[in-house]
Amino acid sequence: MQAKEEDVCLGANKYSGRQPIGIAAQSEEKDYWEPPPAPLFEPGELGTWSFYRAGIAEFVATFLFLYISLLTVMGALGSKSKCSTVGIEGIAWAFGGMIFVLVYCTAGISGGHINPAVTFGLFIARKLSLTRALFYMVMQCLGAICGAGMVKTFKKSLYMANNGGANFVSPGYTKGDGLGAEIIGTFVLVYTVFSATDAKRNARDSHVPILAPLPIGFAVFLVHLATIPITGTGINPARSLGAAIVYNRAHAWDDQWIFWVGPFTGAALAAFYHQMVIRALPFKSRA
Amino acid sequence: MQAKEEDVCLGANKYSGRQPIGIAAQSEEKDYWEPPPAPLFEPGELGTWSFYRAGIAEFVATFLFLYISLLTVMGALGSKSKCSTVGIEGIAWAFGGMIFVLVYCTAGISGGHINPAVTFGLFIARKLSLTRALFYMVMQCLGAICGAGMVKTFKKSLYMANNGGANFVSPGYTKGDGLGAEIIGTFVLVYTVFSATDAKRNARDSHVPILAPLPIGFAVFLVHLATIPITGTGINPARSLGAAIVYNRAHAWDDQWIFWVGPFTGAALAAFYHQMVIRALPFKSRA
Amino acid sequence: MQAKEEDVCLGANKYSGRQPIGIAAQSEEKDYWEPPPAPLFEPGELGTWSFYRAGIAEFVATFLFLYISLLTVMGALGSKSKCSTVGIEGIAWAFGGMIFVLVYCTAGISGGHINPAVTFGLFIARKLSLTRALFYMVMQCLGAICGAGMVKTFKKSLYMANNGGANFVSPGYTKGDGLGAEIIGTFVLVYTVFSATDAKRNARDSHVPILAPLPIGFAVFLVHLATIPITGTGINPARSLGAAIVYNRAHAWDDQWIFWVGPFTGAALAAFYHQMVIRALPFKSRA
Amino acid sequence: MQAKEEDVCLGANKYSGRQPIGIAAQSEEKDYWEPPPAPLFEPGELGTWSFYRAGIAEFVATFLFLYISLLTVMGALGSKSKCSTVGIEGIAWAFGGMIFVLVYCTAGISGGHINPAVTFGLFIARKLSLTRALFYMVMQCLGAICGAGMVKTFKKSLYMANNGGANFVSPGYTKGDGLGAEIIGTFVLVYTVFSATDAKRNARDSHVPILAPLPIGFAVFLVHLATIPITGTGINPARSLGAAIVYNRAHAWDDQWIFWVGPFTGAALAAFYHQMVIRALPFKSRA
Repeated sequence: MQAKEEDVCLGANKYSGRQPIGIAAQSEEKDYWEPPPAPLFEPGELGTWSFYRAGIAEFVATFLFLYISLLTVMGALGSKSKCSTVGIEGIAWAFGGMIFVLVYCTAGISGGHINPAVTFGLFIARKLSLTRALFYMVMQCLGAICGAGMVKTFKKSLYMANNGGANFVSPGYTKGDGLGAEIIGTFVLVYTVFSATDAKRNARDSHVPILAPLPIGFAVFLVHLATIPITGTGINPARSLGAAIVYNRAHAWDDQWIFWVGPFTGAALAAFYHQMVIRALPFKSRA
Repeated sequence: MQAKEEDVCLGANKYSGRQPIGIAAQSEEKDYWEPPPAPLFEPGELGTWSFYRAGIAEFVATFLFLYISLLTVMGALGSKSKCSTVGIEGIAWAFGGMIFVLVYCTAGISGGHINPAVTFGLFIARKLSLTRALFYMVMQCLGAICGAGMVKTFKKSLYMANNGGANFVSPGYTKGDGLGAEIIGTFVLVYTVFSATDAKRNARDSHVPILAPLPIGFAVFLVHLATIPITGTGINPARSLGAAIVYNRAHAWDDQWIFWVGPFTGAALAAFYHQMVIRALPFKSRA
Repeated sequence: MQAKEEDVCLGANKYSGRQPIGIAAQSEEKDYWEPPPAPLFEPGELGTWSFYRAGIAEFVATFLFLYISLLTVMGALGSKSKCSTVGIEGIAWAFGGMIFVLVYCTAGISGGHINPAVTFGLFIARKLSLTRALFYMVMQCLGAICGAGMVKTFKKSLYMANNGGANFVSPGYTKGDGLGAEIIGTFVLVYTVFSATDAKRNARDSHVPILAPLPIGFAVFLVHLATIPITGTGINPARSLGAAIVYNRAHAWDDQWIFWVGPFTGAALAAFYHQMVIRALPFKSRA
Repeated sequence: MQAKEEDVCLGANKYSGRQPIGIAAQSEEKDYWEPPPAPLFEPGELGTWSFYRAGIAEFVATFLFLYISLLTVMGALGSKSKCSTVGIEGIAWAFGGMIFVLVYCTAGISGGHINPAVTFGLFIARKLSLTRALFYMVMQCLGAICGAGMVKTFKKSLYMANNGGANFVSPGYTKGDGLGAEIIGTFVLVYTVFSATDAKRNARDSHVPILAPLPIGFAVFLVHLATIPITGTGINPARSLGAAIVYNRAHAWDDQWIFWVGPFTGAALAAFYHQMVIRALPFKSRA
């Protein structure tokens, strides 16, 4: 009961006087509630509407993500003059901005993953059950396929002439470069997600829960700024798979493994870094 | 009385410890107050100043929205070199940024719709009365006409030479493409508005009420990035009507129906999705 | 005492359950404290350090504003290829972004005006004394002159060749166009400032006090997107005066009156709109 | 004890009714807790995990900062057509956006410096111990070297052909211009950091603690918009050193001193301005 009283204003920075941004947090009093690791299988959730609703929300969000972002790519690539398009920066905004908006909209419904790599990272940190993780990934991939398909129906010739927005390693870069870019890029994203969803950080710093969707969207935007010239930027296996399936030419599949191995590796590294190094959870007794 | 005490810090994330972003909300305790459906006609509101003030605020906001956004369009299209303008990305920022600023300014006065499609979506979810909805739409359209007219007075030749910022389906796309782009684009916007205004989400996630105007503005920005090459992007019947009336050439009217049917359909789908799927309201007993 | 208890969580949306964004606020209970009109002369403040500190903060902020924004203008205009610069959009970001940052930094010190038109608008709404208003304006103009002067010292030839970043009505537009653009542009800015600083709005909507500097900065960004092609965008007499003094060629002075009359008129209209229409203050008895 | 009760909702604007943005704060009641100056040497912290964890977080953050930003620079410079890149504006977003994301992620762990100049500024304001300051700086420089090295491994020829993203004073500008640009640029950044981390401001204005990482990121973005044409923009000695070491050509070292003397001078000026002028701390008795 007292704990509940304590938590009422969690959004407000209870330690701002003692630990403002700029100075390291050193207090080790326990003023937050760490959720226990999610069980691998949680049969109870299969009988709730909120489970299926979460899957639908992931489907719709990934659909809208692919639709808006690939349509922006097609608009930019389809123009004769590069100067009269939104440019690479506009494409990066489309990907990152949609993640901002969609995480804002779906955070309270499904957690706002919209990306199998995010789901995978949170799963290995035991933040959700295996059942839920697999369900989310399937729904994300289905949403991505539908979103890419919708873009193709608008102007098929334009879509096919521009590689369907599928991810490839650009000429001049090796497969290793592409894999490295995907690993570090996904690390940036999933590290931001872990920082934004950490119970301890949420309790202590008022900016963490309130801004959350914005830095997550910015992380996607920034990785696109940096790695579009290398791989077109995946960091989201559903996005890469959806575009590859709808485009469906042989060379669209050659590099597909990079956009699954890379993001999953990056997500695992981010989960390891956050849980082991930042939170040092294994070395603490859980209350 | 106790409920009121409970609600004091609604803006703070009361469940951040248990349900951070990244994990689905599963608690089903009722900790928020769902407003009852607005009546179709609410005669009482016609006698209040706040009703007329809200209409004036919608008029002024839609005026400023069209003024700034169309002036940006004219500045970009009127330049000889595309590289020395704000470009399509700048135009998208003008539309989306103005919605951010104007929703911020008018949210507490009129609800900050600035768009008949938003008003329509909220109306069919019974968030406001029919009287108020119609009054808002009329004021929005009047504001849009005045805003577009003001842009025309600055440099009439430039305005008429660039189609007056009116919406058309671009050559190479079918009417169906244009309609589809308007439907999904408005869905993105109105879905974001519903997420931002949901009483349950507002109560549970601290980022929802505080960031609200920002993702709404970003939704408009992102849809413009994606669909300016297809329709010039309407997703706001007042904006399309205002530009068409002030431009007033025959071909400005040919596609006008698309910019009413599309946005209203998209708004209805978003209302259906939010109320039926996400909130499953019809399947719940209201307290 | 009870009032103080009530106010503790003002930043949180106490009415989010009943009046979410999207629905007009209708409650008329008085839950906020309206400060009384500032006296014309407040001799007491002349003896406080906080008064002079506020003036210094305005000086430094306006200095940094002119320095960063005019340096960005010079960088963009000085490049041979328009495509390898930040472009007009980057210039608009420089002006708007600096206002965001500087309002964030100085809001609690001086109120964060950084603009005589903002000071004028708040003065005629009786939010600060005449003494303070005049002191702020003088400090803003001095800061602007120093900021522009600093830019000139970097590369005098570049500065003089590009009109010193001074405001002019562009060829093809009339003086009336320029005046109108300045009036409406400043209206957008000062209307946003009034919305962000309103005691009633601050008490009721959690997004109002927390986001405040961001929409104010965006307003400046958006007006620049729209009116750089017309006047180079003033909406800030200190910025226009500083650049004109440092550039100091005859034609820099011809249009100077537009950049004082326009912004002051726009600010007065915004003050009138907010105080008379939105708040209807004269028709209410003050508590 | 009463003080603690008072502080519970620090994040909320306790004075919003009386001192909204736009009006100077005049209340001088003490409602916040000023931390005492950090000791030069704090032997206790050397035995805590949080000390080393903070250093690791600084290393990782600076690594990711250099990686994403220099990769964006390489992508933009490596393209044949300037119009089909993210441009200078995209590069500025990469630097500023990464600082936003990384300050968001690491603020609660290490304070989120990611920049020896920020660490130096906070050190001379006695916000952290000398031990911690030196440890941070070493970790930041190591992270920067690794980040730049990672970019070099992607495409060595591209990296070496474009000066390795190292900072130089551009032709046409003097060493003095470069030094001045670095001093004022760093002043903008560190002044924003001080404003965001001030205990008094955090207690009084709800936007200060919540938005904090965003204006800090914007400050970096804006300084890049303005000074990329002059020095490529350092304002971060770790970033300048990392790029110089990995590029390692003689001319990369000629100007290196500017990117240490400039940022440290700017940071010292910002610390002086905030502590002496804005807070007038030496003239107050500490409670």
